[in-house]
Amino acid sequence: MAGDAYPVSGPERRARVALSFLAEPGEPALGALLRCCDPAGIVAAVSSGCDPRAALPAGRGVPGLARAVERWRARLGRLPTDSRLAGWERAGIRLACPGDPEWPTQLDVLGDARPLVLWLQGSADLRFACLRSVSVVGARAATGYGEHVAAELAAVLAERGWAVVSGGAYGIDSCAHRGALGAGGITVAVLASGLGYGYPRGHRELFAAVAGNGVVVSEWPPDRAPTRPGFLVRNRVIAALSCGTVVVEAALRSGALSTARHARDLCRPLMAVPGPVTSTQSAGCHAIIREWGAVCVTGAQDVIENVSPSGDGLGTLRHGPAAPRDSLDPATRAVLEAIPSRGASGPAAIAVTAGVDLNTAIRSLGALAAAGFVERCVRGWRIRKDA
Amino acid sequence: MAGDAYPVSGPERRARVALSFLAEPGEPALGALLRCCDPAGIVAAVSSGCDPRAALPAGRGVPGLARAVERWRARLGRLPTDSRLAGWERAGIRLACPGDPEWPTQLDVLGDARPLVLWLQGSADLRFACLRSVSVVGARAATGYGEHVAAELAAVLAERGWAVVSGGAYGIDSCAHRGALGAGGITVAVLASGLGYGYPRGHRELFAAVAGNGVVVSEWPPDRAPTRPGFLVRNRVIAALSCGTVVVEAALRSGALSTARHARDLCRPLMAVPGPVTSTQSAGCHAIIREWGAVCVTGAQDVIENVSPSGDGLGTLRHGPAAPRDSLDPATRAVLEAIPSRGASGPAAIAVTAGVDLNTAIRSLGALAAAGFVERCVRGWRIRKDA
Repeated sequence: MAGDAYPVSGPERRARVALSFLAEPGEPALGALLRCCDPAGIVAAVSSGCDPRAALPAGRGVPGLARAVERWRARLGRLPTDSRLAGWERAGIRLACPGDPEWPTQLDVLGDARPLVLWLQGSADLRFACLRSVSVVGARAATGYGEHVAAELAAVLAERGWAVVSGGAYGIDSCAHRGALGAGGITVAVLASGLGYGYPRGHRELFAAVAGNGVVVSEWPPDRAPTRPGFLVRNRVIAALSCGTVVVEAALRSGALSTARHARDLCRPLMAVPGPVTSTQSAGCHAIIREWGAVCVTGAQDVIENVSPSGDGLGTLRHGPAAPRDSLDPATRAVLEAIPSRGASGPAAIAVTAGVDLNTAIRSLGALAAAGFVERCVRGWRIRKDA
Repeated sequence: MAGDAYPVSGPERRARVALSFLAEPGEPALGALLRCCDPAGIVAAVSSGCDPRAALPAGRGVPGLARAVERWRARLGRLPTDSRLAGWERAGIRLACPGDPEWPTQLDVLGDARPLVLWLQGSADLRFACLRSVSVVGARAATGYGEHVAAELAAVLAERGWAVVSGGAYGIDSCAHRGALGAGGITVAVLASGLGYGYPRGHRELFAAVAGNGVVVSEWPPDRAPTRPGFLVRNRVIAALSCGTVVVEAALRSGALSTARHARDLCRPLMAVPGPVTSTQSAGCHAIIREWGAVCVTGAQDVIENVSPSGDGLGTLRHGPAAPRDSLDPATRAVLEAIPSRGASGPAAIAVTAGVDLNTAIRSLGALAAAGFVERCVRGWRIRKDA
């Protein structure tokens, strides 16, 4: 995890990891406490039996804090040993903390509900992948129509250089991931279980495929099984990670509507795909079009128009990078500079020129492609003409 | 036609009939001319070879008038003989002119494009039927899905006491009329041909059924065949007659979208039924939801919510009359007063008590039912409890 190489210090990183084992994602008391206390101080207070409220400025209260601290203290036995952490790292699970280069800063709009840490597995850089991304979500009990539409939508988004974010569930979610993968695109699966647990279990191969050309994400420690409320808590991350959310099929009480609600509350573009009014699996889509002002979208072109009103990515494949070169971390910039300005080069040659190992080169190339700097061609990787 | 019994005088009525043979519905020059000249004066000028512009106030011009007058003059030979008019009257074709009790005053929002006259055939009173009406329109080349939805929507609207207005065409229009008729409701077919011509010819039986429990309407003289531009001109009347317009299925270039455009331009509630995004016959519906702000409706309840925001007709069948008693014409009021305040009575008894003939009684009862005053029951007609 090479914590000390990142802007986030080793102690803060370790404290955030510890807190992710003690608290539940999105716990309001922890979010409020973190506004005025550093993570290491909170962990120290919880472990030592001190009251973390002692660290609060005079007159500042955090509702529900006393009971929350009791809960955290009761879980102290769950803190992982260094060897367990090392085992997850060997399994390819890495960490992103606020302040890290891979931290998706768009999550900061979640305020107190911002994730403590994100556990990641996969070849893509989460931050770059999500700079140009759309969440495609929907019912687990999807119809053939919804599955077809989700896969097709995700495939065309991927072809146009948009990453597809979803929840890894059966039904619409899996069709969205598979559609993006089938088109050679980047996809991001945000799970409500730990990455090692990988719920639903039947999607183990899907998650491996997502990790191969994208990234699997979780707020929960790798060994954690999902809980029912966890799915709703997770949905805020799906909505906040991407530039907009599309609901493909959802019944009136579908969990996908909670993702839609988060997108709406975050003022991110919210879209829904209509379907037959005779299908209960489209009733939620129609309801949010009518009542929440979700935009009625019928395909990838409508979606791209909504998430990039300038028409970015429309009609042709021309579009400039989604991030300035200055924002690249040193390794990614070195990889970008190692690509010849004319012609193309293979990953191994690029790694040698950039002075990085092959895995870093491949991951950086994926990030650069997602951000619109480079593109894959038959001879390897080349600079995009419009970059 | 008993012209002199109506507020509109005999000469004006005769002049409007004559003009309806000379000019085309919606001709801007005629509409502009009628703002400052009376119909009889225009007919006299056209027939005598005088220039009707002589009657215009000084400095007032009407664009295109000279050529329009030439066209009208060339058609003077088409003016009907009294015996032809009498023949149509015997066939049950009657006339409504602005100012008549049966004239739907909601058409007055059309301004210069207001119909000159309406030719009517059927048992319902057009004005009362349309006080509580919804236009249900769509593609001729409808799918089984669209036909099912249109018929179901119209049936439930009819059950809730709403008249269904449509264009009498194949596809969605005919399903809307048939759905309303099947539920014992009132339906209004606005044709783009004369009532005697009855286009499409294959709908002769449908039009007879519509006339039996509703009314068939045309701006064109009874013998007139339809023209291609006539369909678009007719659509403004469909939009203006009703409290709102629902498009059930329409391709992107469907004529039904012209009705939708009129509804939008008249600020009448505009609604569309979504469908599979894989169906080109729903593409027009999705486009007007996304681009014109048409409300996405999935059934009659959504439609009623939109055309009567107070919730009139929702949930239960309770709703008061759509018009005050004072607005009823003398015969209809007499019929209303002839219905016992407790129990029910048959049409023949009501006609005797009211002192009107049986046909008048039946037509008035239809109008009173459409306006929410009375309802049919097993023993005849009774006053609605909520009237």
